[in-house]
Amino acid sequence: MFTQIGVVGRGRLGSAVAARLAEQRLTASIETADLVLLCVPDRVIHEVAERIPVGPWIAHMSGASPLSALDPHTRRFGLHPLQTFRRDGGATQLDGAWGAVTAESDDARVRSRWLAETLGLRPFDLHEDGRVLYHAGATVASNFLVTLYRAARRLVETAGAPPEALLPLMRRTMDNGFELTGPIARGDWATVEAHLAAIHQQAPDIEELYRAMARATRP
Amino acid sequence: MFTQIGVVGRGRLGSAVAARLAEQRLTASIETADLVLLCVPDRVIHEVAERIPVGPWIAHMSGASPLSALDPHTRRFGLHPLQTFRRDGGATQLDGAWGAVTAESDDARVRSRWLAETLGLRPFDLHEDGRVLYHAGATVASNFLVTLYRAARRLVETAGAPPEALLPLMRRTMDNGFELTGPIARGDWATVEAHLAAIHQQAPDIEELYRAMARATRP
Repeated sequence: MFTQIGVVGRGRLGSAVAARLAEQRLTASIETADLVLLCVPDRVIHEVAERIPVGPWIAHMSGASPLSALDPHTRRFGLHPLQTFRRDGGATQLDGAWGAVTAESDDARVRSRWLAETLGLRPFDLHEDGRVLYHAGATVASNFLVTLYRAARRLVETAGAPPEALLPLMRRTMDNGFELTGPIARGDWATVEAHLAAIHQQAPDIEELYRAMARATRP
Repeated sequence: MFTQIGVVGRGRLGSAVAARLAEQRLTASIETADLVLLCVPDRVIHEVAERIPVGPWIAHMSGASPLSALDPHTRRFGLHPLQTFRRDGGATQLDGAWGAVTAESDDARVRSRWLAETLGLRPFDLHEDGRVLYHAGATVASNFLVTLYRAARRLVETAGAPPEALLPLMRRTMDNGFELTGPIARGDWATVEAHLAAIHQQAPDIEELYRAMARATRP
């Protein structure tokens, strides 16, 4: 398939991708590449793509950007790893994550799936029209999980309890397949009202989050 | 310490607790117990406590209920396992979870900590005044995590992507110590606006959740 892959960008994602490709001796300079892989912020994808001479395949690794960001290139595809990356976390961060493949031809799809598997990702097809909603889902699952933890941590710390006590609870909630337990599942609205009164008094900046999430939790 | 523990209630929690105590041959009938452990819904704790003759120690395992729910008993404490339980999940569900100890005397505290450790919990002290806020934190961390996942799942499914792809992302977000990445961390408000437009059109019931969580995520 590809034997010379040039990676543009060495941020969190670009570093992990370049490390994985280097393990497999697939890295090359942009000038000699048969695939140029853009691991750059969404807002500069188009600008960078325009500067690459048309010829080699080109791909971006953005979740929300359309393939048209790669204009004027037509040998192109998108591959978005559904994962969060640390700086200097290395290639193994890719292992086991899923990768969203967006392609406009069978040829492009086959190449994108090959790249996904080469990187250690589990590929699935994602239609161009669904990318933004899909990326919103990824943001909810990952970024808002951080926000949720920070809110819970603040409540527990303000109450004088150790925040690390939340971790086994959160892991088990996932391991149990996200089964809903607790006061809302039991229809115990008195407890929910007591929570809101305590939050209003002691952590009012959490109140909007609690109310919105409680409303969304209600059956 | 205690040698005859009577457990009232065989719900999710009561079943796990009774199983752990049975392993250690510590279970007894309520009539002969030196500790009566109430694993009943919050709203009936007081009613059940009133029916138990004063004499043995008594404890509840509720997160939000005050110790006064155990009136007229005075040899009493609270121990709340910070965990979510499945029906028939057994005693091992207690292992590694933390347990919030609320006690009004050193004697009660020593007994509550002993019970926590006997059950496999890591005890920490929680002041009576902090219980409701602490329990709100637990609800945010566990119940609202379910809601968050369901919202993300709905977005990803509506986009035509496999929802199981979210799981490695969520686990890694936790493993990475809840470091914030993604569009909001990058100040990429164009992507956030694009998410909102797509959600408004295709999954409007998620819009309030997304807006509230995005506001809470903003630095």
